[in-house]
Amino acid sequence: MEEIVIIGQKAKSASRMIAKMSTEQKNNTLNNVAKALRDNSDTIIAANALDLKFSIEMGIKGAFIDRLTLDKARIEGMASGLCDVAKLEDPIGEVLSMKQRPNGLIIGQKRVAMGVIGIIYEARPNVTADAFGLCLKAGSAVILRGGKEAINTNSAIVKIFQHVLESQGLPKECVQLIEDTSRETAIAMMKLNKYIDVLIPRGGAGLIQSVVNNATVPVIETGVGNCHIFVDASANQEHAVAITLNAKVQRPGVCNAAESLLIHKDIAEEFIPKVCNALKNANVEIRGDEIVQSLLCCTPATEEDWATEYADYIMAVKVVENIDEAITHIQTYSTGHSEAIITENYTNSQKFLNEVDSAAVYVNASTRFTDGFEFGFGAEIGISTQKLHARGPMGLKELTTTKYIIYGDGQIRK
Amino acid sequence: MEEIVIIGQKAKSASRMIAKMSTEQKNNTLNNVAKALRDNSDTIIAANALDLKFSIEMGIKGAFIDRLTLDKARIEGMASGLCDVAKLEDPIGEVLSMKQRPNGLIIGQKRVAMGVIGIIYEARPNVTADAFGLCLKAGSAVILRGGKEAINTNSAIVKIFQHVLESQGLPKECVQLIEDTSRETAIAMMKLNKYIDVLIPRGGAGLIQSVVNNATVPVIETGVGNCHIFVDASANQEHAVAITLNAKVQRPGVCNAAESLLIHKDIAEEFIPKVCNALKNANVEIRGDEIVQSLLCCTPATEEDWATEYADYIMAVKVVENIDEAITHIQTYSTGHSEAIITENYTNSQKFLNEVDSAAVYVNASTRFTDGFEFGFGAEIGISTQKLHARGPMGLKELTTTKYIIYGDGQIRK
Repeated sequence: MEEIVIIGQKAKSASRMIAKMSTEQKNNTLNNVAKALRDNSDTIIAANALDLKFSIEMGIKGAFIDRLTLDKARIEGMASGLCDVAKLEDPIGEVLSMKQRPNGLIIGQKRVAMGVIGIIYEARPNVTADAFGLCLKAGSAVILRGGKEAINTNSAIVKIFQHVLESQGLPKECVQLIEDTSRETAIAMMKLNKYIDVLIPRGGAGLIQSVVNNATVPVIETGVGNCHIFVDASANQEHAVAITLNAKVQRPGVCNAAESLLIHKDIAEEFIPKVCNALKNANVEIRGDEIVQSLLCCTPATEEDWATEYADYIMAVKVVENIDEAITHIQTYSTGHSEAIITENYTNSQKFLNEVDSAAVYVNASTRFTDGFEFGFGAEIGISTQKLHARGPMGLKELTTTKYIIYGDGQIRK
Repeated sequence: MEEIVIIGQKAKSASRMIAKMSTEQKNNTLNNVAKALRDNSDTIIAANALDLKFSIEMGIKGAFIDRLTLDKARIEGMASGLCDVAKLEDPIGEVLSMKQRPNGLIIGQKRVAMGVIGIIYEARPNVTADAFGLCLKAGSAVILRGGKEAINTNSAIVKIFQHVLESQGLPKECVQLIEDTSRETAIAMMKLNKYIDVLIPRGGAGLIQSVVNNATVPVIETGVGNCHIFVDASANQEHAVAITLNAKVQRPGVCNAAESLLIHKDIAEEFIPKVCNALKNANVEIRGDEIVQSLLCCTPATEEDWATEYADYIMAVKVVENIDEAITHIQTYSTGHSEAIITENYTNSQKFLNEVDSAAVYVNASTRFTDGFEFGFGAEIGISTQKLHARGPMGLKELTTTKYIIYGDGQIRK
């Protein structure tokens, strides 16, 4: 995989140039790239038509084709997204907790660029622009490996970016696309420890699992969400219905949508018909445990249901004895993404916040808020469900690292 | 590897108990464990004698035997180390940057326990006590996999810990030792993503490489250090000699010792004999480039020398044209651990701090300071040379993670 090694070397070399760019230079580049996307939208749409034609010929349809499709409006969305990144505060350069040690050494932790970031993704060409914009602003070069279905579109977009970079006297290898979409090149990329500092997979559970299993480069695992809502005995039931409905159906295909609903036994008889009818009216299929089945007509839930991220109009519903059973259930089946308790009980709200071990834990709010924009980061590169480096929504800061800088005046160690 | 899975399950379950322990409970446990180590030092020394006997029979000698050996003084060192950890501030529970969003959601990032930490190490039994103490204080359970040469010693120490844990009503699985030291169990441990949250290898380059290559569990890469000192034209030469000598010989076997010395050409003729004679007087073998060879009698340096972590009384010495050549040389050969510039030139000091991409970058001080204790953390679990999660010396804080906690009053996403 000589080709991948060369891509890695060029990215590392380009990353040293980016690390020296001023905030103004980075912002100008982002705005110029956005303009170039708008100016060349016909070229992108023509390339996208080739990808669409091939995918349709292969018999692919539905949501996949929708994700792959670019039109003027979506290209404008990519361009304005890049301009938004230009407006974000530059995360690079901040020095954290600089302190003088007793021996006179002055030690601080400085936020610096990661270097080279690898992004492996599927068929959404907007990730190409997103990832480039965020990585550039965070001071890093990016190596992109998108799905084969979007190769013509991605290649057209990256060529436009590279043209702008070169016109500004920057190395075009600030962004590179791996054009060979074979499994072998993907695996080679995942083992390129010498040149890639971090790998972020963006896509379905299969893609993420493959990266986790094959990569020797450090990975930030993103995205899989089997999210829970626990409605406690003391819940404001009106809020509980609204939050459950919102968490399930406002956008069922995304990772922060809720999949399982746990209900305290004391309110089961009253609350279950209420919430389940609201869900059914929103076209949600209920998969209930025995108590739920005794209260309404629904599909019986199996063991598998508790562990499933439906990403669809389906919700598993279970009655629990108390908050402890709810927490144990979540510990057993959750993917560690987002969970919410609906309660008016102070002690239970704190217990849930303390004992549930997920990236985002809510009291009386929808799990759908787990999102970089909703959290106020102004950007999002993904949602980490692992515990190293970043946990939860990742913005620009999570695409950076730190180094210690130490000022001395001749100190030696005794 | 059924056995490893059971160890993982038990650790995860124990970690939930530790996460609920108060700071006082954790400190009491640490102090009690320290007392038990002192009270049972004869048992430990007897177990250690078995390990030593076996290693000596296998023909092992020298530094390895020294590292493996425990006596009363070293056991006292382990015990007082645990008491020191008890005195450190508890990193758990701090909430970072809690903010109210425009929709009324209150979002904060809370420092919480990692869960289960895996430590893979070689023949130093003091790591057994160190790692347990730091992981417990950081709120996590630990799974230890030490070298086979120390198995009797490690097993004796862990049994003492477990006895104390049980006597305090805590699960003994807060610390577990993998007694089967086969390669197969180590590999199984490295792939135990469901139960182990992070894996930290402590040992030589071979061990670390094996963990990086085989683990699917997130790894923090520690330790390999090919550290550089660059003596600029304007350097205070007295400081430069003292710092070089300190960085090379104060403790040559450790990762923050310097391996390569780069010297600005303008001072080569004057400075090289000065620094090399001082090094030679301290029994350091000089491996020099052509200019160095022309100035004194030394071994010619090969390409391999620039990339070698000697961990010994050897130093590679090279003359460079200017600071840019020094930085490029470091970028090419460094392992990203620690590098120092010795200079009186302001612009060059800032350039070096900015452009050298290592965990710790020094101006006018010895690289030997890259250490959790010297940085004022009061502890150290290792020195990270990767860029994710932690970079540089890792203390208690680096053994924790965060989660977002969100207080709402019925918010749903629009």
